[in-house]
Amino acid sequence: MKRYSADEYVKRIEALRKEMITAGTEFYYVPGGDFHMSEYVCDHFKCREFLSGFDGSNGEMIISADGAYLWTDGRYFIQAAEQLEGTGIELMKMGEPGVPKISEFLKEHMNAGQTLGFDGRCVSGGSFGRLKEALAGKEISYKTDLDLVGNIWSDRPALPDGKAWLLEKRFTNLTRAEKLALVRQEMEKAECDVLIIASLDDIAWLYQFRGSDIEYNPVTLSYTVIMRDTATLYMSPGKATDIRAALENDGVTVRDYEDIFEDLGTLDESLTVWTDIERINVKVLDSIPVNANRILRWSPAFTLKGVKTETEVENERSAHITDGAALTKIICYLKGLHDSDELKEGKVTELSIASKLLGYRKEAEDFIEESFAPIIAAGPHGAIIHYEPDETTNVPLRDNDIVLMDTGAQYLRGTTDVTRTVVIGEPTEKMKTLYTAVLKGNIALSSAVFKKGTSGRRLDILARKPLWELGYDYNHGTGHGVGFLLNVHEGPQNISSGPSGMGDTPFVPGMITSDEPGVYLEGEFGIRTENMIVCVPKDSTEFGDFYGFEVLTLVPFDRDLIDTEMLTEEEIRIIDGYHRCVYEELCIFMDENERKWLAETTRPLIDF
Amino acid sequence: MKRYSADEYVKRIEALRKEMITAGTEFYYVPGGDFHMSEYVCDHFKCREFLSGFDGSNGEMIISADGAYLWTDGRYFIQAAEQLEGTGIELMKMGEPGVPKISEFLKEHMNAGQTLGFDGRCVSGGSFGRLKEALAGKEISYKTDLDLVGNIWSDRPALPDGKAWLLEKRFTNLTRAEKLALVRQEMEKAECDVLIIASLDDIAWLYQFRGSDIEYNPVTLSYTVIMRDTATLYMSPGKATDIRAALENDGVTVRDYEDIFEDLGTLDESLTVWTDIERINVKVLDSIPVNANRILRWSPAFTLKGVKTETEVENERSAHITDGAALTKIICYLKGLHDSDELKEGKVTELSIASKLLGYRKEAEDFIEESFAPIIAAGPHGAIIHYEPDETTNVPLRDNDIVLMDTGAQYLRGTTDVTRTVVIGEPTEKMKTLYTAVLKGNIALSSAVFKKGTSGRRLDILARKPLWELGYDYNHGTGHGVGFLLNVHEGPQNISSGPSGMGDTPFVPGMITSDEPGVYLEGEFGIRTENMIVCVPKDSTEFGDFYGFEVLTLVPFDRDLIDTEMLTEEEIRIIDGYHRCVYEELCIFMDENERKWLAETTRPLIDF
Repeated sequence: MKRYSADEYVKRIEALRKEMITAGTEFYYVPGGDFHMSEYVCDHFKCREFLSGFDGSNGEMIISADGAYLWTDGRYFIQAAEQLEGTGIELMKMGEPGVPKISEFLKEHMNAGQTLGFDGRCVSGGSFGRLKEALAGKEISYKTDLDLVGNIWSDRPALPDGKAWLLEKRFTNLTRAEKLALVRQEMEKAECDVLIIASLDDIAWLYQFRGSDIEYNPVTLSYTVIMRDTATLYMSPGKATDIRAALENDGVTVRDYEDIFEDLGTLDESLTVWTDIERINVKVLDSIPVNANRILRWSPAFTLKGVKTETEVENERSAHITDGAALTKIICYLKGLHDSDELKEGKVTELSIASKLLGYRKEAEDFIEESFAPIIAAGPHGAIIHYEPDETTNVPLRDNDIVLMDTGAQYLRGTTDVTRTVVIGEPTEKMKTLYTAVLKGNIALSSAVFKKGTSGRRLDILARKPLWELGYDYNHGTGHGVGFLLNVHEGPQNISSGPSGMGDTPFVPGMITSDEPGVYLEGEFGIRTENMIVCVPKDSTEFGDFYGFEVLTLVPFDRDLIDTEMLTEEEIRIIDGYHRCVYEELCIFMDENERKWLAETTRPLIDF
Repeated sequence: MKRYSADEYVKRIEALRKEMITAGTEFYYVPGGDFHMSEYVCDHFKCREFLSGFDGSNGEMIISADGAYLWTDGRYFIQAAEQLEGTGIELMKMGEPGVPKISEFLKEHMNAGQTLGFDGRCVSGGSFGRLKEALAGKEISYKTDLDLVGNIWSDRPALPDGKAWLLEKRFTNLTRAEKLALVRQEMEKAECDVLIIASLDDIAWLYQFRGSDIEYNPVTLSYTVIMRDTATLYMSPGKATDIRAALENDGVTVRDYEDIFEDLGTLDESLTVWTDIERINVKVLDSIPVNANRILRWSPAFTLKGVKTETEVENERSAHITDGAALTKIICYLKGLHDSDELKEGKVTELSIASKLLGYRKEAEDFIEESFAPIIAAGPHGAIIHYEPDETTNVPLRDNDIVLMDTGAQYLRGTTDVTRTVVIGEPTEKMKTLYTAVLKGNIALSSAVFKKGTSGRRLDILARKPLWELGYDYNHGTGHGVGFLLNVHEGPQNISSGPSGMGDTPFVPGMITSDEPGVYLEGEFGIRTENMIVCVPKDSTEFGDFYGFEVLTLVPFDRDLIDTEMLTEEEIRIIDGYHRCVYEELCIFMDENERKWLAETTRPLIDF
């Protein structure tokens, strides 16, 4: 989105204040989200950016009669301070000592009888519930149907108009009808009559279609309401033209996107309604009759979709060969840059690498788009965990830099997400020690054998242990679920110690997860080694069933960064075996030079 | 307790039914506990045994007008079936298909308007809450003040009359006053006015005394109520004579054991009361004014007492040397039995070993008692996880048996709990493989380095991993907290994957826990290797604080059962280093023969 001078934002906030007076609300809350709690939002929903000019990926605002405040996290303190200069908006640095959360701020600044307004379609039921709890006893009123930014944003980008398209059965081998039956089974077990889903990826999975409404996520804006004998998809008619017939054939009626509110209002109060309160917006939630019984937890689509079918896993294996070839080519290219003129002349930059890699990926027939904004981080940029190069931050590679590349793609055959860290020239001893510790952690996790019922929270330590033993750690999760040609971040499982609850989901065969330990030295470099792994059965004894992982990603590790003295015999055996697979599967995609390099880089770690 | 003929129990249940009619209750619940939710109960509380003749450690009953039912778990199905024969009591095998839980049974069998009675002093507030929830909507009444068994048990054992005794400051270096201050700090943080504790070990810890009321647990029957400026210990006057003055000196008033109910009734309704609903009985809970605000979670004493002071840890180190010497002597003795006449003549039995080991422990000046019923399990008995030898089950050792010994003691210097598994003669390959896998797990846990904030749930996999990789597992937790001259099972931490919540407590230096993986082959043998470990700081870097463990237990592993081929260099280094420590610390306690054996058994695993 275009950015303007500070004065323009001052004007916009004044205009908003006029709307607030008309609407009768003393405080107005501008969250960052869309109607579906999506991880990324399309421009139509960038109200905070419109009001403030701050365009980091995380930011929320409160506007009052005489103040305007913007909350964001540590990744963006510097950027926000710069972009908010002169706007009169006060920057609230989340997590810093003395900086209140939004609810604490409102608790302190609002008086009895005042009103807080917001667009209830952009706030989850769970968030609103927690806000009300924090403000309990303050006699605050809420107006949840106010899209005041919409009133003043004359050239607001429209909602995306891309069409949904059917995903052929051969990609999943589980049909729409079968999925509906599975979902209805879960509804019956829960003794529930009505299931409401607003998560775009759950809906796409269930009805076996894909879209293009969210950057990187092949989904379409929609809701669905399922009952024992009926199912309704709420999607703008123009977007549903290519899927309508197939859906109706499976008993799914397509109604207009906005019809859901009215339809929910007609539900019988005696019905039991199931929805995920963290993934449904306030307006939808409030449309349910007040006295209806509610089940408020993950939808069955959320949990079922995490377990990929054998066909989906097969397709992902195939997609990973394609994707691995692209990554391998870029690494070969980077390795060849050491001491080169191209490098010395500063011609190779983070963005040029991202572009070249994208070029390799696009060679695949079924390539659709990237699965997230590519992270190509040279040298010290690698230590900034969410660094994404753009025109202003882009730097050229320097000789002996470590380059961290975390990228992924959407193919018809599935979603990929892979990280390789590569040194261009001579690594330091510290680089090798840390690279190898990260690699040991990655392998410990992917080679683990564990009892059925084990959750990611219990596996997490395997990836951290080699780093912990050296006094290092990484400040992010070890792994997240990955969708099948869907969102790169999925539940219901993950591998972390955080409070989200997904860490306690037991792993079952078919779940696809990332395995991505790393280590980040501020001002120096960052290292991350990420593979995608699928849970598979390993053994069945009188003591029970045991599972493990199969690695999907096929890209060589950087042998220049491996300190073999730190590896056990078993680890060396695993790496050599993996590298042999990489060579066997990828050599046909390489040109002569690349094949030579690949054979060299995948040879046994220890030459006898 | 003495057991009688089946007829006697038939009579007792009839007598109980008469009491039920008089008391106006159609159903009567006989739980197994005492007034304090203690793990072990003294004979006064063995109402279920009195009524049924079944004397396993776990059993509860429901008696109705025309039926009598006893629930117990898998350990006791055979024993219970035998002991209940002819009594008319129906055995309810917990966990078996089709067998309802007590609440489900009552839900099915009770009619609207009927009453369930029980002794509210023997049921926790949490249990009763869950029962009421399960029976909600059935219009059941509850009478929670009925000690009907007490009415018919004419020669009921009295409550124990042992006296509490002061624990000198030098054992803990944290005084009663300091502990009260810490507890009051927590009360202030929680904005609570009144704290009620019924857990006997929490009370003993807080007021720095010990007792002898529960077998194996040096505690005294008591309650305490703490407020900002007052503290009251409720204990029978005769038991408090040796501690009263010291307590009063620290502002703790001693009132009679039964006074608590009346005293709580006089509390102001506006006060906020804190108690652990799972560890407080219904009668105490009901004595709190109905409208008082309640905080229902672990008491601060529960969480504070888990973190031992440096002095307590120092004392435990010392106690473990003493204890280690006793264990080492018994192992030396057992090793010498191979091919001996003593063994061939069947003179060495599980009980004779238990007795001999107890004899060694008693040699310590500050030995008080065992910390739990000794488990000495020869051959197949080792596979029965809770096996404890008694006169009827006791068997002689046979040559080439594996013997599993899980025993512990209470010294003034602390509590011990250790398991060693020893082969008398020639082990099979399978024994060695499994012993070594268990040992690898034990070492992986005790040598782990982990980030501050890590919980036992996240460490658990380290102990299981080597077994999981071979398709084995053990069906119990990996480790439990251990008290300081208190209960051998303590919170607030443990190392397990179970739902208890203790698995999510972060480890902090000073916590003492057991480390006890094992493997059990029904009909063959059992292996467990248990050390006690104390959490210690290990490192502090820019990435944070890192902790690890120091092993307290000093007893050799059985080198005859170790397959060195399965060990990494690091593991061999750790075992050799541990064995060197064992020799250095224990050799002075050994006679000439024993010292010779100890030197031999602790020599490096691999002879060059």
